[in-house]
This record gives sequence, C-alpha cells and structure tokens, in this order.
Amino acid sequence: VDIRALAFDIFGTVVDWRSSIIDAVHAALPEVDAETFADRWRGMYQPAMEQVRNGSRPWIKLDALHRESLDSLLHTHGGAALDEPSRANLNLAWHRLDPWPDAGAGLVRLRRRFVLATLSNGNVSLLADLVNHGALPFDCILSAELAKDYKPKPIVYERACELLDLPPKQVMMVAAHPDDLDAAAAVGMATAFVSRPDEWGPAATFNPPPADRFDLQASDLVELAQKLGL
Amino acid sequence: VDIRALAFDIFGTVVDWRSSIIDAVHAALPEVDAETFADRWRGMYQPAMEQVRNGSRPWIKLDALHRESLDSLLHTHGGAALDEPSRANLNLAWHRLDPWPDAGAGLVRLRRRFVLATLSNGNVSLLADLVNHGALPFDCILSAELAKDYKPKPIVYERACELLDLPPKQVMMVAAHPDDLDAAAAVGMATAFVSRPDEWGPAATFNPPPADRFDLQASDLVELAQKLGL
Repeated sequence: VDIRALAFDIFGTVVDWRSSIIDAVHAALPEVDAETFADRWRGMYQPAMEQVRNGSRPWIKLDALHRESLDSLLHTHGGAALDEPSRANLNLAWHRLDPWPDAGAGLVRLRRRFVLATLSNGNVSLLADLVNHGALPFDCILSAELAKDYKPKPIVYERACELLDLPPKQVMMVAAHPDDLDAAAAVGMATAFVSRPDEWGPAATFNPPPADRFDLQASDLVELAQKLGL
Repeated sequence: VDIRALAFDIFGTVVDWRSSIIDAVHAALPEVDAETFADRWRGMYQPAMEQVRNGSRPWIKLDALHRESLDSLLHTHGGAALDEPSRANLNLAWHRLDPWPDAGAGLVRLRRRFVLATLSNGNVSLLADLVNHGALPFDCILSAELAKDYKPKPIVYERACELLDLPPKQVMMVAAHPDDLDAAAAVGMATAFVSRPDEWGPAATFNPPPADRFDLQASDLVELAQKLGL
C-alpha cells in the first residue's frame, strides 16, 4: 500500500507528558508529591473524556477537562489555596510538554516522504502550542476537536482521513498505545506501534504488544523512519 | 496589544502561485500560452468561491472548484484532449506551489515568538501538502474548510480565532491583499500587509495601500519579523 500521510498520537508517543507535568507541578506546588499528582491528573483523563464519548455530556475541549481534573485534585491533594492565575498557568503545562529526545530528528526524516499530521485528543490550540514549543516539523494539526468527539471513537479517525483527503489505508496511525491503533485499524488505517516503556515513569510495568499485531513496530521515531526506508 | 499568533494568507502572500502554475501548465500543455492560462485559471477563483459565499451552492472544497475551472478552461483554451490522470495531476499543482524566497527564513524567525497558522481558502489537504512541499515551519493549518465558507466571510476568521483559543485582537492576519485584511480587522484581528508586487507577474500594476491602513506593513516576511522585533 502507498502510505501518503502519518497521523501521530501525541501524549506519550511524541512528547514525554509525565516528566514535563511533574516539573510544572513541582514548580507550582513545592509541598506536593509531584509524581503522584501528575499520575493522578493523567489518570483522570480517560474517565473525563468518556463522558463525552458516551454522550452524557456535550463536546468540551480537553483544556477544560484538564482544568476540571486539576481543580478536583487541588481540592483533595493539598493545593486548595492555589490562586486562579497559578491554576490557569499550571493547566497550560499541557501546552508546553517536551518532546521525547528522538522526536524532532525522526519527524524531520519522515517529513521527506510523508505528510505529517498530529491526531490527538488535545484541542487545536494545545497542539499548536505544543508543536511550537518543541519546534516540531508537523505539516498539519488534526485533533479530536475537529470531530467534536474523542479517540478511540471512529469518527475522530474518519474525520482526519477526510481532511487529509486520503483513503484510510493511505494514512498510517503512529502511537504508543494499542487501543488507539486498534481503533485506527478498525476504520482501515495502517498502524505503527512505537514503544515508550518510560511513559509512566521508570518504575511502571511495560507490556509490549505481540510483534504481528500492527503493521510496523519501532523503538522510537528515528527507527520508524529507518523501517519506512528513510 | 499582546499578539500571540499570526495567521497567514497563503496564495500570493507566502507562496508564488503564478510562477508555479505557469510551470505546471507549460509541462502539461506545451502548446498553450501558459501565462495566460495561469492568469485565467486564477481569475476564476473568486467567482467560483462567490457561489459558496452567497449560498447559491453548498460548501465544496477549493480542490473541486479548481478542477471545475480547469475543465472549463481546457475546453475553451485548447486542452480538451488532456486525459483524466493528467488533469488530476495538473490540478494538484496547487498543492506544490513554491514559497517566495523570503518565506522560510521569515517564518523561522517569527516562530520564535508567535504561533504560526495558515488561514487560507485552500482546503486542509492542499495546505498540508503545500507546507510539506516547502518545508515551511507552520504550527497549525487553519483553513476555510474548517468553517465551510470562504474568506472574506467573517465566520472563517472567527472560527480560526476560536480554534486558536485567542481573542481576535491577539491574532494578527498577514496578507498581501487589502480585502483579506479589512475582513480580519472587521472581526477585531490585528493586520499586517506584505507587499507582493510580482504576484500577478512583472508586467502587472501594483497599487500599495496607504501606509496607515493596517497595523503593520512590510516588504516581505523577513522584514515583518524585524518589524515585530525578531
């Protein structure tokens, strides 16, 4: 198949959300256990989106979900006194996540042959800020926001292929999360798994998927470029 | 005012559509006067979009409007024998327009402080291909397609600011066309005029707007960066 575009999951696949959020929490709340706080904040991500996915609440941007989760955590984990500007700034830490060390170099190589798009549950402004922060060479921001629903709902992948004006088989989803790739495959997209064993920190258990579950597997974005002949 | 993002018109402002289209027409139709053909093709651009803007036809991507105009021109200007694959390829010339010589260097500098978005009547896939072709460092593709209407309708500018999650006064529209900037100013955006006297070729007349009509004027994107302190 003639792959024309790559669509990248972002949180965990292209950027190291955990280290960046830990640093931001530590700066804003020196008295709090920043690792636990970061993991709990991220732990509220899927349940928050699930309310939109199952229709129990209308579309709302990820920035707003992150802020609701933050306010809740501050209330229960010792940050209730944090003022409004500091909360707003801490929530924007999700716009300033640092890329994994291989990301820039891998994307530069991949861009020589493929159109590179994000395909993330982050809202467009979050992704534009993130790409600017890391000076990442993406060609296009595609987001759950443009479908007004969240991955892994099929409409998010379908809308991305429609905006790229490509049949799904010519678009390869690149992600560190098997459920994201399974959902992409279900609409007909090609799939590449990128191992990010440290996404949840060095102490977390990492279970790699079987080697034949996806079209490609790579240890990082530079190896992905090599495996795609670049 | 604290400008946070720049939104760029593309055709004529960032890329030299005329030279690229002349080259593509010449390659596909050696017997045709390529300059006249290119100018007439582009001349059909505004009337085609006007049908969408005034509601006389439903939303349709610019790629489809370009193709309708091309088929009509081939019929009347001596290319009726051109086969379907050649027509499709010629229409894709709009996805492979070369940037003006200053564009890459200017955008690299501007990206250090601002989020850089396209804001063009080109569809998303056209713009993603164009940005990839020129390796241009944009952070975000914004397009009339995301509003399902064409500039200078206000909804296109409003939708862009909404997706950037910024009030219009914090977004500066950058364009070589006064009517585009007037429409951006009407929704509250800041404006920068970039002179492109050669957009319609060296023989065309260029009438620069009065110096005080827009917030900034620059001769190219490098000078725009200088005028913005970069």
